[in-house]
Amino acid sequence: MTIELDEIKKREKGLKIINEKIKNEGIDSLIDLTGLAGGFDVTPKDISLLETYAGPAVFDEKIQKVGIEHLGGEKVLPLNRTTSGIAAMIMTYVKEGDEIAHYLPEEPGHPSIARTAKLVGADYVEYTDINDFKINDNTSLVVITGTTMDHEVISENDFKYVINKAKEQDILVFVDDASGARLRRAVYNQPTAIDLGADLSVTSTDKLMEGPRGGLMAGSEKLIDEIKLTVNQYGFEAQAPLVVGMIKALEKYSPERIKEAYVEKDELYQKLIDKGLNPLTTPTGFMFKEDEIKNVVVDKIGEMDTPSDIIATVYSMLLLENYNIVTIPAVGMPGASKTIRIDWSAKDSDKITMDEMVCAIVDTFNKTAEVCKNNKVEQVLYE
Amino acid sequence: MTIELDEIKKREKGLKIINEKIKNEGIDSLIDLTGLAGGFDVTPKDISLLETYAGPAVFDEKIQKVGIEHLGGEKVLPLNRTTSGIAAMIMTYVKEGDEIAHYLPEEPGHPSIARTAKLVGADYVEYTDINDFKINDNTSLVVITGTTMDHEVISENDFKYVINKAKEQDILVFVDDASGARLRRAVYNQPTAIDLGADLSVTSTDKLMEGPRGGLMAGSEKLIDEIKLTVNQYGFEAQAPLVVGMIKALEKYSPERIKEAYVEKDELYQKLIDKGLNPLTTPTGFMFKEDEIKNVVVDKIGEMDTPSDIIATVYSMLLLENYNIVTIPAVGMPGASKTIRIDWSAKDSDKITMDEMVCAIVDTFNKTAEVCKNNKVEQVLYE
Repeated sequence: MTIELDEIKKREKGLKIINEKIKNEGIDSLIDLTGLAGGFDVTPKDISLLETYAGPAVFDEKIQKVGIEHLGGEKVLPLNRTTSGIAAMIMTYVKEGDEIAHYLPEEPGHPSIARTAKLVGADYVEYTDINDFKINDNTSLVVITGTTMDHEVISENDFKYVINKAKEQDILVFVDDASGARLRRAVYNQPTAIDLGADLSVTSTDKLMEGPRGGLMAGSEKLIDEIKLTVNQYGFEAQAPLVVGMIKALEKYSPERIKEAYVEKDELYQKLIDKGLNPLTTPTGFMFKEDEIKNVVVDKIGEMDTPSDIIATVYSMLLLENYNIVTIPAVGMPGASKTIRIDWSAKDSDKITMDEMVCAIVDTFNKTAEVCKNNKVEQVLYE
Repeated sequence: MTIELDEIKKREKGLKIINEKIKNEGIDSLIDLTGLAGGFDVTPKDISLLETYAGPAVFDEKIQKVGIEHLGGEKVLPLNRTTSGIAAMIMTYVKEGDEIAHYLPEEPGHPSIARTAKLVGADYVEYTDINDFKINDNTSLVVITGTTMDHEVISENDFKYVINKAKEQDILVFVDDASGARLRRAVYNQPTAIDLGADLSVTSTDKLMEGPRGGLMAGSEKLIDEIKLTVNQYGFEAQAPLVVGMIKALEKYSPERIKEAYVEKDELYQKLIDKGLNPLTTPTGFMFKEDEIKNVVVDKIGEMDTPSDIIATVYSMLLLENYNIVTIPAVGMPGASKTIRIDWSAKDSDKITMDEMVCAIVDTFNKTAEVCKNNKVEQVLYE
């Protein structure tokens, strides 16, 4: 019998561990290397403005300024999550029987796209090979993902090719630029999605920048106003404190930290290789995909039925429990990637040396193998 | 030609006025009598916890405690808005071809219910007469609204009658207890919706309590977990700063202020009658519905084509511009009620005497009549 991962319960367990650590060791004991370590850098003065009707007025003016600088376009729309924005955008423009065509460098696309397509009764097609990409008669929306969950980036040429194909048929182009809005630009010197010709783009304000979990969408005033109506109707908007967090993070955002990690990650990678491990590099760190995590564990204790998503989540939980290092599988939302990704551009990387990092990674593989061998998986994940 | 109200543009204008007043006169110059004057009573210590993954862990524990005390049930779920929770709940339990039967003391029900019913392809029926209420073969959800937008309350007997009818057929019962969770309880001594036998209830944490705009849902652990999955999948959840605001507001909530206003509103009402006006009372203040606002204006300047929702919004905008008094029509979300409702239990009522209040109401009727007479409606609403 194959066991299935209970994503709600594992997240509650992950958050419980964090809670205990904060109580016992203080919040600075946590080392958040998710690259999603968004915070709310909010002053007491900001707080006095955080009133339901007053806050939005003041902060809307500021977010327009810094948001448009960051993403381009005529107007921006702050969202409770990137997912909320994707859902609202599809609900606004895609009808039953329409098709959404999605070009992305690697499957899977963000689950919210397929999920909302299904909700409105639309077809949904993903293309990972640019040569296969096509527009059908019922295509009403083209989505492009600028980078994968694992930080692969598509080329400027591919970007333009897909946008041109869509524009020939006058079809709306939306770019899921969750971390790409910074990665593509800081590391690869690409233009903003809007400057590349897309109609709309959305970015996650907690990815590769120190903002809160949330989304920021950009586009023309007309499109943003249309989506804003849906957003208000369903309760997808970012509330004032999120907007403040986004403003602060955008004001202090600098591509330098990302560029530095881009260089240092090669040294870190070599140290892991020297330990006999087989990580993949990311632009600003390294990662182990769930299959590779299972491979390492199987090498230690032999074949087993336990699926790789469960093993990767156990790994993440143990890394948190023993080394206070936060990675996504233990605490992410349902459907989040099970890749153990270490973002060396995260500010918490200052709390740990490269050698300590490597030691934690190696030891956690040993501990994960032990847990699997002794049938303690459920205990680690849920109890 | 009848002009239509542009709800996005009027809200932007309302927020712009607020923004200017904060810049020029300071935030304390605003008098928010919406009864929705939620704030974020957050300390610097709270802020250090407002990190994406750390915050939820700490605050989830606390919101469970105070939330269950307030609403009953086994588990609570904090939401970005009440609307977000209603949408997620319907998306979780109602399928294409199902019916939602809604019992409410007065039409219209909250627009998010009909809207989400349509989104999932379900039928939607509203019953305002308890004798008409019925369950059909395809009914999969019964909704009860505990109080109307205008603060009417249904009786405990009617509550139980509808719940029993639903339970006979084993149908899920959801209570939209937006302000009812406090009004029904503090003023009318009714039990919580859950204690009345409902499966789920949701309340707005900014209505008749000093929390942020947001929603809090309660129910059994099983149901809340199911809805939480949808909530996470679409980005409907309350983020950490909202949760903190909810906790603080629930911790300091006392039904006393509501009970006091319940007595004082009679004096206020009499003063308005003495000025020749015809307000309706609410449990904690008074209100003018849009039709009555138009009536007063027509009495002053004669018949006109301008619809009453526009006149009420002009009234609200002028009350804000000239007296700094915030009411819903000027700043509410699209679809929000166009009633001018003054909540005398709002903490900002301390900033104004009863006589000043009455004077502002009377003078704003005069100013509204002038604007309508001189064809300056669009200027007041949008420019």
